[in-house]
Amino acid sequence: MAMQNGYSNKTQLDVIVVGAGLVGSLEALYLAKRGHRVRLYEFREDIRKTPQARGRSINLALSVRGRRALKDVGLETHMIKEHGIPMTGRRIHRTDGSTYVIPYDANTKQSIYSVGRNYLNGLLLQESEQYGNVERYFNHKLIEANLKKGSLTFLKTDTNETVTVTADLIIGADGAFSAVRKAMMKQPFFDYSQKYIEHGYLELCIPPADNGGFLMPANYLHIWPRGEFMMIALPNQDCSWTVTLFMPFDKFKNLDTEEKLLAFFEKYFPDSIPLIGKKKLVEDFFAVKPSPLVAVKCRPYHVEDKALIIGDAAHAVVPFYGQGMNAGFEDCTLLDQLFQKHHDNLAEILKEFSETRWEDTFAISDLAMYNYIEMRDLVTRPSYKFRKAMDDFIFWLLPNFWVPLYNSVTFSTMPYSLCIKNREWQDRVLKKLLKIVGIGALIGGAVAFKIKYYS
Amino acid sequence: MAMQNGYSNKTQLDVIVVGAGLVGSLEALYLAKRGHRVRLYEFREDIRKTPQARGRSINLALSVRGRRALKDVGLETHMIKEHGIPMTGRRIHRTDGSTYVIPYDANTKQSIYSVGRNYLNGLLLQESEQYGNVERYFNHKLIEANLKKGSLTFLKTDTNETVTVTADLIIGADGAFSAVRKAMMKQPFFDYSQKYIEHGYLELCIPPADNGGFLMPANYLHIWPRGEFMMIALPNQDCSWTVTLFMPFDKFKNLDTEEKLLAFFEKYFPDSIPLIGKKKLVEDFFAVKPSPLVAVKCRPYHVEDKALIIGDAAHAVVPFYGQGMNAGFEDCTLLDQLFQKHHDNLAEILKEFSETRWEDTFAISDLAMYNYIEMRDLVTRPSYKFRKAMDDFIFWLLPNFWVPLYNSVTFSTMPYSLCIKNREWQDRVLKKLLKIVGIGALIGGAVAFKIKYYS
Repeated sequence: MAMQNGYSNKTQLDVIVVGAGLVGSLEALYLAKRGHRVRLYEFREDIRKTPQARGRSINLALSVRGRRALKDVGLETHMIKEHGIPMTGRRIHRTDGSTYVIPYDANTKQSIYSVGRNYLNGLLLQESEQYGNVERYFNHKLIEANLKKGSLTFLKTDTNETVTVTADLIIGADGAFSAVRKAMMKQPFFDYSQKYIEHGYLELCIPPADNGGFLMPANYLHIWPRGEFMMIALPNQDCSWTVTLFMPFDKFKNLDTEEKLLAFFEKYFPDSIPLIGKKKLVEDFFAVKPSPLVAVKCRPYHVEDKALIIGDAAHAVVPFYGQGMNAGFEDCTLLDQLFQKHHDNLAEILKEFSETRWEDTFAISDLAMYNYIEMRDLVTRPSYKFRKAMDDFIFWLLPNFWVPLYNSVTFSTMPYSLCIKNREWQDRVLKKLLKIVGIGALIGGAVAFKIKYYS
Repeated sequence: MAMQNGYSNKTQLDVIVVGAGLVGSLEALYLAKRGHRVRLYEFREDIRKTPQARGRSINLALSVRGRRALKDVGLETHMIKEHGIPMTGRRIHRTDGSTYVIPYDANTKQSIYSVGRNYLNGLLLQESEQYGNVERYFNHKLIEANLKKGSLTFLKTDTNETVTVTADLIIGADGAFSAVRKAMMKQPFFDYSQKYIEHGYLELCIPPADNGGFLMPANYLHIWPRGEFMMIALPNQDCSWTVTLFMPFDKFKNLDTEEKLLAFFEKYFPDSIPLIGKKKLVEDFFAVKPSPLVAVKCRPYHVEDKALIIGDAAHAVVPFYGQGMNAGFEDCTLLDQLFQKHHDNLAEILKEFSETRWEDTFAISDLAMYNYIEMRDLVTRPSYKFRKAMDDFIFWLLPNFWVPLYNSVTFSTMPYSLCIKNREWQDRVLKKLLKIVGIGALIGGAVAFKIKYYS
């Protein structure tokens, strides 16, 4: 198969992608477009046949890095126009039930998009059916891997048979608890860390209104920041909301009776009770245990010219920057660029990916950890609001020169590590600026700006 | 067996220790003294039957924490008097071959002791033969573990049979690449990190003199600090020296011919060439590849009331503070104290060990990383020498009040994390002191002290 979809290849590579989740399915499309043979193996059954994947968040925030990848495989417009709900900012809920908005991008009015995990995953898989060079195998659990030989053994969970397959390249996109990564850990010089944070999460639901519409203003990411803990809500296509409570496990444990739970919600999230419904709140809260949140950092990502890990398998992050999927999708985009640059020379592609990508994935991991504190606590403080107003003001004055941190992460494809360096530089400039210009003048400008654009 | 060796137990526990290395063998003795039944499983064959374990350092520095543990099991005097070579300080080798001494403990003249790994390991195993309640199984490789059930499956490497055993308690003392820890990693909330440093090590040897004595002054740890890399030497019982070269892997790679190797040694370690012997240097250097160095941090160390990891399995550290074995032995001492405190209640013993020990093992891991820079680089700098003289001077003035960092780590049983806090407090005090007293007076005192006690 020398020509397919406009790309030309001297050799068709035989690639196995482990994991048909969001990142694995997208990677299969990228490779298929290049004309390579792709076999996609998935432990679970076909997500298109299951109503809801268990133990994973229902919706996700799609931003620019993810959009770029979807555009590359021809699915961006459909997702944004037909199935993404734009969120223009954070809508903060006070304990008295009143709310105010912090726009994500006061100047150019860009949005992030709430998308359904299952829908997007199904769409990516469906799209892969368009390519004759992609094969899909569900209910295949990886039980043994010889990465240096490019050989994998799967257990077929429906028939209990085992099957061993080999390929030119193995790509592990099998998530935070990756089996491919576990095999990689046996290599010497593999640096690895996994860290569980002290907070867990539990999902609740606000149903659609009786008239079928949304019970809260739809185009926001709603946040109830309460210092040590927080609740957030993202809108779904069916006008329901997925509500997620993030809290220390100890605090979850204390809420062991209906009375305690309701007293807790009355105190901290009173406006949410009629929305969720008292009966449903109690039912859903006690139906499942809170889930843990883990951050994984490791490197290198490859074994010789034979195996690579991408997505959560390579860099699971906590969910507080909304960048987990976006970073995983960006892996696929960068990998595709390296296939182009190195003319399908796997040794060079994998080496360069390993050597260059870790700095940015470590950066987004650190940013996501930091953002949890911002979202649940700092966001309500005057110092945060002051800085945010200041940032937006200078961004409005000099849009090409001064891009605030959140905007560079979410609305640009600037490497994550540069986003941090950019912010550090801005911190230094602001410090000097405050001295030179005088605090008064700047506050005046920021307040004027806020009055004009935020209200 | 209700009474044995003076300890009384209401119940005899059935304990499996995985790993009959230094820490596992010592732990078996502690448990045997308490009257518990101990089965000790080891992947390798009996070290008493092998001339030299492969891939592990030949000798080690025994200091106060290790001595306390050996004392508890009745072996300290023998090791120190008969088989330990006291090292009173670092003997620094300049490139011109001249040397000078930095004493470990200028005031109370304490030493660390160079001991042979194999000898000490054999001694601990031999001692366990004195106890009817200890069984030893060699050539048993752990291949499966169900820690919650206290069940382990071993492959007998000589017969290829497998055997499954259960116990009240499983203690993993199976080293930096612990199989017990691997099983533990499957538990949720297990934080884990492994980090390879960019430096590797390679062992060489200085033989005994023709008259059977030492070719260098025996009672020192010899160091050739060269900034980015270093060589050290520890004395052996047979009057030979184990010489270890620590260096970035890149640098090792560059020394790929006999000529380059000799030119490198002529430039940086000229005085060592006649001691090692030119022929032997070339032979030994090219006989093996440099080995990697890994640091492992994790927590918690236990699973319910069933399993615990100790020693390198729980906290492998880089070797630059000479505390790897000492910290592992201290684990055994602390565990024994917890058995006493909680009257053999395993749930409480394991929980308290996990909750209290990690802070100190994380601390010694960080100290060991830091000490590499001190040993190979800082040690030759005026600022280091100045601080060392200052520390020793105040220590001499106020020995109960001011214990320098190295001394608290090496010659006391102060928890490692407190050693660091103590040092941070000293840093603050010194800073203030320098302002108040004036630098001149202090330098004068330190110089006078140095002249009096160091020369």
